[in-house]
Amino acid sequence: MYPISKDIASSVAKTHRRGRAQRAAVNLKSKIAVSHSRKIPVYDLLDEAALVLLEKQADWLLENVGIEFKGDSVALELFRDAGARVDNQRVRLKAGLERELCATAPKQFTLHSRNSQHSVILGGDHIVLMPGYGSPFVSDLDQGRRYATLEDFRNFVKLTYASPYLHHSGGTICEPTDIPVNKRHLDMVYAHLRFSSKPFMGSVTSAGRAHDSIHMARLVFGDEFLESHAVMQANINVNSPFVFDETMSAALRVYAEANQCVCVSPAIFGGAMGPVSPAAIAAQTLAEAMAGIALAQLVRPGCPVVLGSFHSTMNLRSGSLTFGTPEANLVTMALSQLGRRLGVPVRSGGGQITAANTADGQAMQDSANAMWATLISGAHQVWHAAGWLEGGLTMSYEKFVMDLDNCGSMLRLFQGLCVDEEALSKPSYSEAGPGQNFLSTSHTLKHFSTANYESLLADTGPYETWVENGSRTACERANDRWKEMLAAYEQPPLDKNIDTALQDFMAVRKAAMPDEWY
Amino acid sequence: MYPISKDIASSVAKTHRRGRAQRAAVNLKSKIAVSHSRKIPVYDLLDEAALVLLEKQADWLLENVGIEFKGDSVALELFRDAGARVDNQRVRLKAGLERELCATAPKQFTLHSRNSQHSVILGGDHIVLMPGYGSPFVSDLDQGRRYATLEDFRNFVKLTYASPYLHHSGGTICEPTDIPVNKRHLDMVYAHLRFSSKPFMGSVTSAGRAHDSIHMARLVFGDEFLESHAVMQANINVNSPFVFDETMSAALRVYAEANQCVCVSPAIFGGAMGPVSPAAIAAQTLAEAMAGIALAQLVRPGCPVVLGSFHSTMNLRSGSLTFGTPEANLVTMALSQLGRRLGVPVRSGGGQITAANTADGQAMQDSANAMWATLISGAHQVWHAAGWLEGGLTMSYEKFVMDLDNCGSMLRLFQGLCVDEEALSKPSYSEAGPGQNFLSTSHTLKHFSTANYESLLADTGPYETWVENGSRTACERANDRWKEMLAAYEQPPLDKNIDTALQDFMAVRKAAMPDEWY
Repeated sequence: MYPISKDIASSVAKTHRRGRAQRAAVNLKSKIAVSHSRKIPVYDLLDEAALVLLEKQADWLLENVGIEFKGDSVALELFRDAGARVDNQRVRLKAGLERELCATAPKQFTLHSRNSQHSVILGGDHIVLMPGYGSPFVSDLDQGRRYATLEDFRNFVKLTYASPYLHHSGGTICEPTDIPVNKRHLDMVYAHLRFSSKPFMGSVTSAGRAHDSIHMARLVFGDEFLESHAVMQANINVNSPFVFDETMSAALRVYAEANQCVCVSPAIFGGAMGPVSPAAIAAQTLAEAMAGIALAQLVRPGCPVVLGSFHSTMNLRSGSLTFGTPEANLVTMALSQLGRRLGVPVRSGGGQITAANTADGQAMQDSANAMWATLISGAHQVWHAAGWLEGGLTMSYEKFVMDLDNCGSMLRLFQGLCVDEEALSKPSYSEAGPGQNFLSTSHTLKHFSTANYESLLADTGPYETWVENGSRTACERANDRWKEMLAAYEQPPLDKNIDTALQDFMAVRKAAMPDEWY
Repeated sequence: MYPISKDIASSVAKTHRRGRAQRAAVNLKSKIAVSHSRKIPVYDLLDEAALVLLEKQADWLLENVGIEFKGDSVALELFRDAGARVDNQRVRLKAGLERELCATAPKQFTLHSRNSQHSVILGGDHIVLMPGYGSPFVSDLDQGRRYATLEDFRNFVKLTYASPYLHHSGGTICEPTDIPVNKRHLDMVYAHLRFSSKPFMGSVTSAGRAHDSIHMARLVFGDEFLESHAVMQANINVNSPFVFDETMSAALRVYAEANQCVCVSPAIFGGAMGPVSPAAIAAQTLAEAMAGIALAQLVRPGCPVVLGSFHSTMNLRSGSLTFGTPEANLVTMALSQLGRRLGVPVRSGGGQITAANTADGQAMQDSANAMWATLISGAHQVWHAAGWLEGGLTMSYEKFVMDLDNCGSMLRLFQGLCVDEEALSKPSYSEAGPGQNFLSTSHTLKHFSTANYESLLADTGPYETWVENGSRTACERANDRWKEMLAAYEQPPLDKNIDTALQDFMAVRKAAMPDEWY
């Protein structure tokens, strides 16, 4: 009796078939990313009592353990002036003080794009998806795994721009290792500004590079606009447990002073940078992030911030890092709730992440699981939504487009179930009754082409056809797809004078420094 | 800065390494399935207004369209006596009548096993996972795709029994196509009773086969026990839209009379057996399922029932059936809510399902997505939780164990985030402060071996090691794993006299009929 034969296929196909090639051509064109917001409820994992316990633990940590701002006398001074206890480089905050300091942060704000249709809102019901961040390697089925280059970086900026399911160009999508370490930030920021018009992230690897990044943004958006509008974002990592190193806190201050968005992301693997239990990781992440957000607000009250996290589990028998695990996903869900209660947008520690070494079933199970935990719990911004492999060591071209496909699917899910007269379609039941089919009812004919999310990657045809076509896996089909996307990529327009100014600035900056490779 | 180097691995490994072989040996032993229940909240997709609209639509459908019980004069008579309007074979129920009839169904009940540790509760916070159902084909990496045999069927019963993450032996896991059609139900029921002691499903392909199935259960459990205890379950498909064929309604009546569990599963693909919109599919599924549940209650008030569904989407351009899609997942979530409101256990139309033709990334994305929708929304029973490929045409040995791994992961997630003093571990922060690691704190040493769900399949080690070991995908590793599981399988004890009685009964029944192959 089950499953229903795929023979139904043929009768539907006769009624509705359209040229597959034609459809693909349309869908592969660079699309303007529509802004997505959730239309389904947020899932609240924890009850009030558990949330209060976690918040009290975060307060306790900041009051008793405290947090070090290494070598950053400016930050220490700001905290001392705000009433914190400062011993050497360690800052301790009386319970509740950090919340007072965080209170000036906006609950929701816009990251502006040079194409206003690409501006995104962080906070509220909005969902902002971004590519992976920080991989030294890239891989594809043709050339295998190798160090990333600037060409790879540009390719991922272009693929991100071309996808309607990513809303933000990301930051260091992969490391352009063919460019000197002290100069690659210029090429990365330029690529985001030139090959995309989606919001992006600037450099944080030194205060000078942060200044360069902001200068380039000023060349595009104008000084005045930047003063009152966030157009870029910085990822400030905490050197967990409880340490901000000078590079990071200095970069944080540069972006906050410029009124640009600061995302503070503690990096905690349970059992290594914090206790092994998920609850402790959630509380510690909250504590460390609040300390960074407090500093940003001390530098410039009201500057836009995001509560970030980069937490996961380890296999404490083998020592390997693990991603997309149930314990990590629980922390992801808890942090979405805690961040929303704090009243700031949340960058989830989830996304489509995995420790798998190839884009296989393990990779996609991990990724899908982490993505559900991320989105259902109400995270506002999702880094690593596409491409991540090997715990972030590699950006995979194939996984990138497989992940994109799932981003589209999840964004459709988050549009919810429409229950209205048109959807319930009572008249259909006059056209087709018991034992009859609905393939040719007027409601089906009206809606069949738009009713369902259409994957560009899934092969759902009969087994025999799939074998005839070479028994190709999703990963092999993805290999075609990213090449098609790059071939169809169309560069967004950029004023010639602005482009020249950007290039001149880069040339001056590069000429002013000898190459550094470490 | 990101990602954190996998070098941490070595230092943890030194502290904690244990023999991998030893662990694997322990974990592969047949384990008693612990009963799992959710400790995290149910996700409610729809608000009250939407739910009421869907319920009203279901009422409207049963009152206006009605439902046919083809050739089943007994069923028609029962409905007529209960106050329904019966025209020829079509039954129409005044709005609300079907709910009155369903009201005698238990909200929660036990499916008893011959090993009481394997008995499961359907309803409430309990989660019951089961293997796939109904595939004519099986596949593995060694022999490829082929018609399923009785040996395959037995293998999947054994694998299901051996897994701690499946709670129920299922029914027609795959079709033993080497056994005559009119006799294979005997071999399937025997396999469930002999090679497993988890609850199982009986035959529904004719009233006679249903009687045979129940007779065999009586030989194991005793007549008296069966009279007051459900020990088996039947899957009654609706021939959607709005038709119960005589085979199905007759089998339904046989199980209901015997006080065994009846699961009523409409089978609706949007655009073919109902309108193309997800909301309409949800309401129609509810209507058709309530009609079947009403019949079961008319046959024997109080008999245990489950509201089932088998719904999905189609690609209405190509005609192919699609699974794990966002629209189908929304229906899954809606039906969990609607079933809980009706007050009966829900068998979800989700599970780990996909239309993919191989256990690739597409298959695992679809499956993980459908599984989240199923479990988070509060479904009680999940068919197709392991093995499904090709829209159910194939049970894959490799996907089976990959799915098992994810079942374990999801069941861990559903245990929730423990927030208590031990988890928050304040003393750890005296042992390790800012900038130090927690690898050797007493809390880590106490909990590291049990803190996290351990996948038996995931490879999370360094890329170089993975390459040295042959760059094997999850699917290839799964090929090892199911063979190890089968090799380690230990048959549960069964009383010799009972076994003889079962075999004698099968011999008599088989001798009484010529083989039929259609």
